[in-house]
Amino acid sequence: MTIPKAAQVFPRSEYLRRLSSVKSEMERREIEALVLTVPANITYLSGYTSKSGYVPQGLVVSIDDEEPTFITRLMDAPAALHQMFVDRSRVIGYPEALIANPDRDGYDAIIDFLLDKGIGRKNIGLETKFLPAVTVEKFRSRLDAKVVDCTNAVTWIRGVKSDLEIAMMREAAAISDAGMLKAKEVIRPGVREADASAEIIATLVRGANGRPGTDLAGFFLCATPRTSTCHIRWTEDVLQEGSQINLEFSGVRHGYTSPLMRTMSIGKPSDQVRRLHEGEVAGLEAALDAAKTGTTCSDVAAAFNAALKKHGFVKESRCGYAVGIDWTEPTASLKEGDMTVLKPNMTFHLMLGNWIGEDVGYVISETFRVTDAGGESFTKLPRELFEISA
Amino acid sequence: MTIPKAAQVFPRSEYLRRLSSVKSEMERREIEALVLTVPANITYLSGYTSKSGYVPQGLVVSIDDEEPTFITRLMDAPAALHQMFVDRSRVIGYPEALIANPDRDGYDAIIDFLLDKGIGRKNIGLETKFLPAVTVEKFRSRLDAKVVDCTNAVTWIRGVKSDLEIAMMREAAAISDAGMLKAKEVIRPGVREADASAEIIATLVRGANGRPGTDLAGFFLCATPRTSTCHIRWTEDVLQEGSQINLEFSGVRHGYTSPLMRTMSIGKPSDQVRRLHEGEVAGLEAALDAAKTGTTCSDVAAAFNAALKKHGFVKESRCGYAVGIDWTEPTASLKEGDMTVLKPNMTFHLMLGNWIGEDVGYVISETFRVTDAGGESFTKLPRELFEISA
Repeated sequence: MTIPKAAQVFPRSEYLRRLSSVKSEMERREIEALVLTVPANITYLSGYTSKSGYVPQGLVVSIDDEEPTFITRLMDAPAALHQMFVDRSRVIGYPEALIANPDRDGYDAIIDFLLDKGIGRKNIGLETKFLPAVTVEKFRSRLDAKVVDCTNAVTWIRGVKSDLEIAMMREAAAISDAGMLKAKEVIRPGVREADASAEIIATLVRGANGRPGTDLAGFFLCATPRTSTCHIRWTEDVLQEGSQINLEFSGVRHGYTSPLMRTMSIGKPSDQVRRLHEGEVAGLEAALDAAKTGTTCSDVAAAFNAALKKHGFVKESRCGYAVGIDWTEPTASLKEGDMTVLKPNMTFHLMLGNWIGEDVGYVISETFRVTDAGGESFTKLPRELFEISA
Repeated sequence: MTIPKAAQVFPRSEYLRRLSSVKSEMERREIEALVLTVPANITYLSGYTSKSGYVPQGLVVSIDDEEPTFITRLMDAPAALHQMFVDRSRVIGYPEALIANPDRDGYDAIIDFLLDKGIGRKNIGLETKFLPAVTVEKFRSRLDAKVVDCTNAVTWIRGVKSDLEIAMMREAAAISDAGMLKAKEVIRPGVREADASAEIIATLVRGANGRPGTDLAGFFLCATPRTSTCHIRWTEDVLQEGSQINLEFSGVRHGYTSPLMRTMSIGKPSDQVRRLHEGEVAGLEAALDAAKTGTTCSDVAAAFNAALKKHGFVKESRCGYAVGIDWTEPTASLKEGDMTVLKPNMTFHLMLGNWIGEDVGYVISETFRVTDAGGESFTKLPRELFEISA
């Protein structure tokens, strides 16, 4: 029996549109075939979200073929047949003998595929970012082709979302909102950080509006005395009167994320944190006003920094980054000096976490899309420092 | 105010013991300083579990210093001061200007540190596994030292656990067990896969015996018609009479995992799956019997394969791998031909997932430690194919 195709997340025409953009870029770079190894880029061009990327796999986009071909570990081929929009013949499972084998691995199977197809005499693009140096060297030595590093080529194309992708990010945002409202409900004096986290995470999985979360993404709950940290999951400590809780997480829909941060305080926050909150919200609103089609990332950051400065604060780190499948897109940053020009439906995580020294930290963030009128946030939550009664 | 040290997960003597083993290996390799970049190895030698590894960071073990030094992004330094056993002076935050900067990044800060210390004229070890080729090249060109790839050196040392680590893995195993019992409770006809997953995951976070989970690890629920897949999170489908559910997940305690797999069936499983279950359990018990001090990984796999064959089945993939911090240790595999000799307190995930073609899949696994009398499993669950009433 053959495994059935899953209900497809996007119509075929959407994948072909994405592939068409990628093939245009390949032509511009004079590349005959492009080997994708970054999981988010494989998701983008095929719909595949199964977690097999811890062993070698690659999606090969050939300039002459309408559909890409996925070369993956044999045990992961059924998931690819199930999830990907492509024909069965486009999924190739390599044998188990290539796992934990020091001589030949799954990347050899990809190279074999290229050689068998007669590709490999012209330029080949390769996403090298997550590949060991010896693997890149193997592509170079086994292929006659010139191997060109194309690490961020597809990532940049992903930067401008289609309306269908925006709709998916709104679904993820509704889940993020549901998680934050759950946090507001379960964060109470006497509750362990881990137990509050369990409830919030369960909400992120159950989802919102009848649409469940489809994956777990980054989740951080950094509470007193750890509010100056930003990437701790949670601890065994019990929340108490006076605790401040900094939250960062995202709902996920078929790979797409819409991260959200808010700060909560059990009882009154300190004056300093209250003032920081006011400055950051002013900065957030200034940044969204500035994020119009045709301006630059640098302009958005400058608007944020100026508004925050009026409140007597400075944020050392960038104030955001491009976001989409699997959270961060390592391309455009909202920081002064980044001259990336904003286009409609670019999406950013306007990440205004501000950690000062070792004892102060405050977080607020929203995920937005660029429009001609400015940044449009996906969250429906108020821009509050949530005060929980003690 | 300075951020307080967290309650330490292991005593200082435990970290010094681990460092001593690493330094012996460095002496054997004639290495003056070792730069660790693999997050699990950083956890092992310091106690750090904060999730900052998506930007450059490195733990430097110097042959002349008792404690290692951590070079990390400035905003992540407070988490390191909080979690690591080392003195404050051993945590160095590099400035935000090195983030999303094409010219200089956090690895330059690590190289600067080595140069400032006067290290870098002799051999330097580097974990290159997750480093882009250009970064490895930068270490080579900026240091006068010979840069030696030490990717799996510390990973191999991690292979043999201390009794304190075994205790931690037992705590993780108790959480895995609690999650599986929760699965048995919530998996019912009419329940969405996502909703069942939410309950199981919440249990993994809440933990067991008063000890919460400290992180999220891999989580897979592959149900009919996807039982031939192995790495799908869950879907929006509703479970029903006749559904088979393959589960793989792990509780986590301070980085340590103890993965567990079980198969559930709503109503009677098929005869084929029932026979496969019997063969796999026979194989599991044969493998545990064989896993005595002094035998090899290959012996264990051969015992499993022979027992399974008697039941008329074959498993193509390896039947397990070394396990510990952050799940898989990419060192020893339980497969025929792997001549790694078993030592007491080596720990393995005896992973007996068996996916045959596109429509059959059955999973069972246990995490065990090697003893003189054979493998000792951490789970207390029965080796059953759990049948849920329809």
